[in-house]
Amino acid sequence: GFEGVAGTQRQRVTEFWDTADVRTEGTPLVQQAVRFNLFHLLGASARVDGLGIPAKGLTGRGYEGHYFWDTEIYVMPFLTYTAPEVARGLLLHRYRMLDAARRRAAEVSQRGALFPWRTISGEEASAYYAAGTAQYHIDADVAFALNQYVWATGDHDFMARYGAEMLVETARLWTDLGFFSEQRGGQFVINGVTGPDEYTTVVDNNLFTNLMAQENLRAAVRAVNWLRATDTNAHAALVERTGLAEGEPARWVEAADAMAMPYDESTGVYLQDDDFLHRKPWDFVGTPAEKYPLLLHFHPLVIYRHQVIKQADVVLAAFLLGDRFTAEEKRRIFEFYDPLTTGDSSLSECIQSIVAAEVGEMRTAEEYFVDAVSVDLADLAGNLRDGIHIASAGGTWMTLVYGFAGMRDRNEHLSFRPTLPSRTSRLRFRLRWRGRLLEVDLARDRVVYRLLEGDDMVVRHCEEKLTLAVGSPVEASGPVRPGTVQ
Amino acid sequence: GFEGVAGTQRQRVTEFWDTADVRTEGTPLVQQAVRFNLFHLLGASARVDGLGIPAKGLTGRGYEGHYFWDTEIYVMPFLTYTAPEVARGLLLHRYRMLDAARRRAAEVSQRGALFPWRTISGEEASAYYAAGTAQYHIDADVAFALNQYVWATGDHDFMARYGAEMLVETARLWTDLGFFSEQRGGQFVINGVTGPDEYTTVVDNNLFTNLMAQENLRAAVRAVNWLRATDTNAHAALVERTGLAEGEPARWVEAADAMAMPYDESTGVYLQDDDFLHRKPWDFVGTPAEKYPLLLHFHPLVIYRHQVIKQADVVLAAFLLGDRFTAEEKRRIFEFYDPLTTGDSSLSECIQSIVAAEVGEMRTAEEYFVDAVSVDLADLAGNLRDGIHIASAGGTWMTLVYGFAGMRDRNEHLSFRPTLPSRTSRLRFRLRWRGRLLEVDLARDRVVYRLLEGDDMVVRHCEEKLTLAVGSPVEASGPVRPGTVQ
Repeated sequence: GFEGVAGTQRQRVTEFWDTADVRTEGTPLVQQAVRFNLFHLLGASARVDGLGIPAKGLTGRGYEGHYFWDTEIYVMPFLTYTAPEVARGLLLHRYRMLDAARRRAAEVSQRGALFPWRTISGEEASAYYAAGTAQYHIDADVAFALNQYVWATGDHDFMARYGAEMLVETARLWTDLGFFSEQRGGQFVINGVTGPDEYTTVVDNNLFTNLMAQENLRAAVRAVNWLRATDTNAHAALVERTGLAEGEPARWVEAADAMAMPYDESTGVYLQDDDFLHRKPWDFVGTPAEKYPLLLHFHPLVIYRHQVIKQADVVLAAFLLGDRFTAEEKRRIFEFYDPLTTGDSSLSECIQSIVAAEVGEMRTAEEYFVDAVSVDLADLAGNLRDGIHIASAGGTWMTLVYGFAGMRDRNEHLSFRPTLPSRTSRLRFRLRWRGRLLEVDLARDRVVYRLLEGDDMVVRHCEEKLTLAVGSPVEASGPVRPGTVQ
Repeated sequence: GFEGVAGTQRQRVTEFWDTADVRTEGTPLVQQAVRFNLFHLLGASARVDGLGIPAKGLTGRGYEGHYFWDTEIYVMPFLTYTAPEVARGLLLHRYRMLDAARRRAAEVSQRGALFPWRTISGEEASAYYAAGTAQYHIDADVAFALNQYVWATGDHDFMARYGAEMLVETARLWTDLGFFSEQRGGQFVINGVTGPDEYTTVVDNNLFTNLMAQENLRAAVRAVNWLRATDTNAHAALVERTGLAEGEPARWVEAADAMAMPYDESTGVYLQDDDFLHRKPWDFVGTPAEKYPLLLHFHPLVIYRHQVIKQADVVLAAFLLGDRFTAEEKRRIFEFYDPLTTGDSSLSECIQSIVAAEVGEMRTAEEYFVDAVSVDLADLAGNLRDGIHIASAGGTWMTLVYGFAGMRDRNEHLSFRPTLPSRTSRLRFRLRWRGRLLEVDLARDRVVYRLLEGDDMVVRHCEEKLTLAVGSPVEASGPVRPGTVQ
């Protein structure tokens, strides 16, 4: 009956908000916009039931309902930390696409597996190879989300049964795609790929792709070694399913260790790709507001020829793989790329905001946050009729948690280096971490970490390690000026 | 009646063979194959009647009857020197496409005019931008054929009425497409283009494109200056039709003078493009014969990522613009690129043959010639059902005249530096040159130049200048060993 259905619904929604809500004090409009985004994340993911999350969630027909890497990099962090069972389902969905990805790799004359840029069934549904097929980084994005999920949940069962196989097949793709270049002193180079930034395509050594591929290769080696050491049967099954040869992981290590990282000595900036500085500077001053987004007003070949960026690319690497850069390198990266980034993609502003916060550009961070959080509620992109931007909704959560609270999750402990936007007096959110439920509560003058469920845990607050136990909140000194967060 | 039509036909065909025939002695099969090619050139061009020549002539439906730059670079030389009125008609056909080319330039966000890669009506009919749209060099190829035609025929009327306007609009395209790069010390660089070789696409500073663009720019400056000096009305009309601004030609000079020419210091070889050496060497040893043409067996992105060439590119520049390279440079170019060239395009072998002959690789030159001359008669490409390769037919004529007879036509006089293939004892052909009819008659031990019609003329035979007059054949010492020809 109606009451029964309504009751179940009410319970599910209450549970969602209880874990997933991010409470802000200061500007009611911000709270409203944040919740608008969270609500749509719920709508897009609650009944995903073994399928993917389309780019517009369930709200519109834009992108024909296709799934992109948006899910892994922009939506999965929210789900991993608030609804890990949904995150697991999405990873399982990718695993079920693995055979299609193997066929796709063969189709583009490569070994291993290549996950599609846009898809519903697992087949590549993009006809435009430059921005589509050439985005090999999707493989590494899937691997990244998988590793993040296993790290945050401790779900080693998933890794043993599904994850390791995905890592092996994607690692294979990378060693087959790149090569050790004699011309570059033995560096492992990956030519002819498109990174996240679709305003430059089919480039050599896209930094984001190379670094993410390096992570992918190393994760594959770790997974194989771990399985061999801990679960002989699972290891044997993996070897059988993938035809893993004895010497393969050694080759992945070599490729990862020799990975090319384009860098400009004179400015000390990591380059988006080998040729980035050789492109023509874009005439930003001479480009009126109505010419944006550029892709609707200039032929792609013209855009490709310029130093102009659609969306965070090196900046995204500086966030996702922040431990690979020094604080000074990140500052230079942000200062160099931010003025060249149009933000013509809704995948951009949330990331620009997070890195702006990290390097201390708080005003910029807040501006990007306001744009990201309100892109759909205020229809800033002018295309709300096609549906909401689900990646930006996930990115909004990331901006609050990774940006303002300064959370990082690539070392032993969850760590935080918080700050607050100027118009926000308080920021509270909850995270699930390896069976625990943690609340982080920021105010101007203090931060409180509360473990609500589960075994004791350690978090890092700035340089300090705090041991948390249920019933014993720990208060740390208030939000600090931003700096490097690890 | 039938007799009347047959008579007219007989007369036209007799006239054609009288001028266009190339007689060879030694191997009847070669003579047969040469005439097979010439016959199809007649079929493709005799009734072109103000339209273009399709890639398959009138013999098949391959390439959907589209016109390519094949006409200008591979077929026009034959027509310019044997049927100049047909050559003029083809150039006029390009002129009639100029408005469509202006629209096409605007469509791809550029100034000036951009002639299409494949077309019937003047509109770009290619949907694949990497191999299609990005072949900006078509503009320069049209300019090249125009200049060659005017040089060989003395048809300055065409230049004044049509040619200058085409040169102005194409020169404009180049200065808008490239830019003076601070990063490269002020060089004029042209990024993101595809040269003749479709196995590397959307590259920076394709040498062929840059050099041909440089020619185009300089020809535009010469044409404008010449018109201003000789025909005020025509100059005024040109300025009106093109909106030519006062400072434009000066900018073309600057761009041409600063044109980037990628060059590798360590090997002393001009590079096909900036990044050619950074690509992965292709595993030729591990590629069995049935995997050619590569484009049917590997994904384009894989091919693009390798040092592997579909068709003459730098080698084509070394032929067309031979005066821009020293003999030693040409030898190094041929030695470096020939082993990397698959010849998967029928536009390749004739050019490889010509340059092989020039640098003294006579055996290679003959092998390429045999392949080129018999590609359709022996169906070597296995696709004769789609029609004959009209560019290769024109290329066959070029191999005989530019290759073995060593003709060059970029200085004051027609020049020759002849040699003979080992199985050919005699080679005779006729050329129309500025209203004259010249016969060149090569044997093993002597060369005879006969002026059959027209005013006295000077030709260069190796280092010697010979003055020719009707009725007074001039005999020169026999075919020489190949060397640089100008």
